[in-house]
Amino acid sequence: MGEREASNSCVDFTPAPTPISQSSSEAETSPASEVQWRPVVGSFRLALIQLQVSSIKSDNLTRACGLVRKAAAQGAKIVSLPECFNSPYGTNYFPEYAEKIPGESTQKLSEVAKECSIYLIGGSIPEEDSGKLYNTHPGTVSYIPQFADYFFKIDSPRPKTNFYAWATKFQLHCMCAPKCAYCRVGLGICYDIRFAELAQVYAQRGCQLLVYPGAFNLTTGPAHWELLQRGRAVDNQVYVATASPARDDKASYVAWGHSTVVSPWGEVLAKAGTEETIVYSDIDLEKVAEIRQQIPIFSQKRSDLYAVEAKKP
Amino acid sequence: MGEREASNSCVDFTPAPTPISQSSSEAETSPASEVQWRPVVGSFRLALIQLQVSSIKSDNLTRACGLVRKAAAQGAKIVSLPECFNSPYGTNYFPEYAEKIPGESTQKLSEVAKECSIYLIGGSIPEEDSGKLYNTHPGTVSYIPQFADYFFKIDSPRPKTNFYAWATKFQLHCMCAPKCAYCRVGLGICYDIRFAELAQVYAQRGCQLLVYPGAFNLTTGPAHWELLQRGRAVDNQVYVATASPARDDKASYVAWGHSTVVSPWGEVLAKAGTEETIVYSDIDLEKVAEIRQQIPIFSQKRSDLYAVEAKKP
Repeated sequence: MGEREASNSCVDFTPAPTPISQSSSEAETSPASEVQWRPVVGSFRLALIQLQVSSIKSDNLTRACGLVRKAAAQGAKIVSLPECFNSPYGTNYFPEYAEKIPGESTQKLSEVAKECSIYLIGGSIPEEDSGKLYNTHPGTVSYIPQFADYFFKIDSPRPKTNFYAWATKFQLHCMCAPKCAYCRVGLGICYDIRFAELAQVYAQRGCQLLVYPGAFNLTTGPAHWELLQRGRAVDNQVYVATASPARDDKASYVAWGHSTVVSPWGEVLAKAGTEETIVYSDIDLEKVAEIRQQIPIFSQKRSDLYAVEAKKP
Repeated sequence: MGEREASNSCVDFTPAPTPISQSSSEAETSPASEVQWRPVVGSFRLALIQLQVSSIKSDNLTRACGLVRKAAAQGAKIVSLPECFNSPYGTNYFPEYAEKIPGESTQKLSEVAKECSIYLIGGSIPEEDSGKLYNTHPGTVSYIPQFADYFFKIDSPRPKTNFYAWATKFQLHCMCAPKCAYCRVGLGICYDIRFAELAQVYAQRGCQLLVYPGAFNLTTGPAHWELLQRGRAVDNQVYVATASPARDDKASYVAWGHSTVVSPWGEVLAKAGTEETIVYSDIDLEKVAEIRQQIPIFSQKRSDLYAVEAKKP
């Protein structure tokens, strides 16, 4: 008998905040802007940049940074750019648009993140490395020294069928105050959202927010974009967010748009249309704990019957 | 780069049909009605009985059997009853309504399944066994001798918080013809649908249809009933069906209704309202193979990074 709400078994799955250790040298390098951060109890603002990507790389970078500044001015503490935000979407464009990492684009992301005192999830950019092309998640650049220059390379196991983004493990600690962990964010790109196991591993590891920069198309977008986000959210009782490029009907690959934030209950909290915009949502970590108490699926999984196992730390 | 459809890598995940071995004695006991079965290539009809459950047990049984006959007359080969179909929904009713298994209810189900030459998924009934009460899936009774009397007891690990239905492993082979396997069905009850791992194990084991007799309530119903079904379907690229009791606004537990069939693409193929009815849908196994070829998530899972593992055979 399923859907009587359990009342008296509490799931304490949400990990206790663990301070990020800071060596004295790291503390010394913390910028002055850090003091403007106010301690936040269980809540912070997320922003998703639904960028209208043009064919001019420098213009994409400039406008992306401008929107990041705008989001930060609205109080966003974590900001995500979309997949392939500095280049038109398509492998045929990659030889021209690919760059080294670190390189021009990551340098600019790092600068704007430091300037705004935010965590910036860099979506993805085409990368050239040793003669090969990648759709690379440029990690998350921030003003916290230990997280700067954390890049996340995504390999391409299927060159003949086009390449896909594959997430491996990735965890970002976000801070609300210098010695207080904010939340854990699990990251994937686009197609990764189809793999339930990745989200399950993230949840096991304490993520309360999953962010997928991605660009579904006009077939899979209406069919699965929102469904997959809501499914990941309700199955793992986490917030789920997606950041898509804005739609360009003249492009060779037309992105679905509709960047979205979904609550751990599976509700759509905020959703863009198809045009360039910024999506904001306040992420309330107490909501995660509340829902996990209300429907205690984590404590009631039958580990004697099945388990999702991560193969790498 | 996620949502370019892969074109040239085929997932041959769907297991090849394997004949169900029949000993000569089994063949001899096959009823005459078997000859009316026509060989079906990859497609068969499913029916879900959304029964209006009353407080009169014998009436529930009689009407359930009547609707099963009606569904069979419409060509259904697999028919599912809802959770708790012979008793009002609630543990307080169980001492009065519980019975032994095998017993009166399972005997009637077995008879009507044989009469109609169908596979009948018995939803659930309250069971008394050794002084304890259970919400028991009475298995699937059919006219095929080797599958008759296959009962599926569901334990109750949380008596203090109310009891929940827990599925363990269960696989049903359905036949379209004496020597041709039809499809594999994974079964769970109600709350089981919240556990992604169960569905993932079923998919690994070759199930192409998951059936969840269940009764969500008026809170979780609108929030999650359809979402969970669509999520299980698209994540595992299987058909998913739910069979709920019809809604009774005067009952102490008001079931959501809305028995549903969802395609492996995540589309709602058929959906009841809240009243007593039969939901029909044709299950096309070629559609399963087609979608698995179109979006080959099974062959592209990163088994080097994660795995869903069944702990029992």
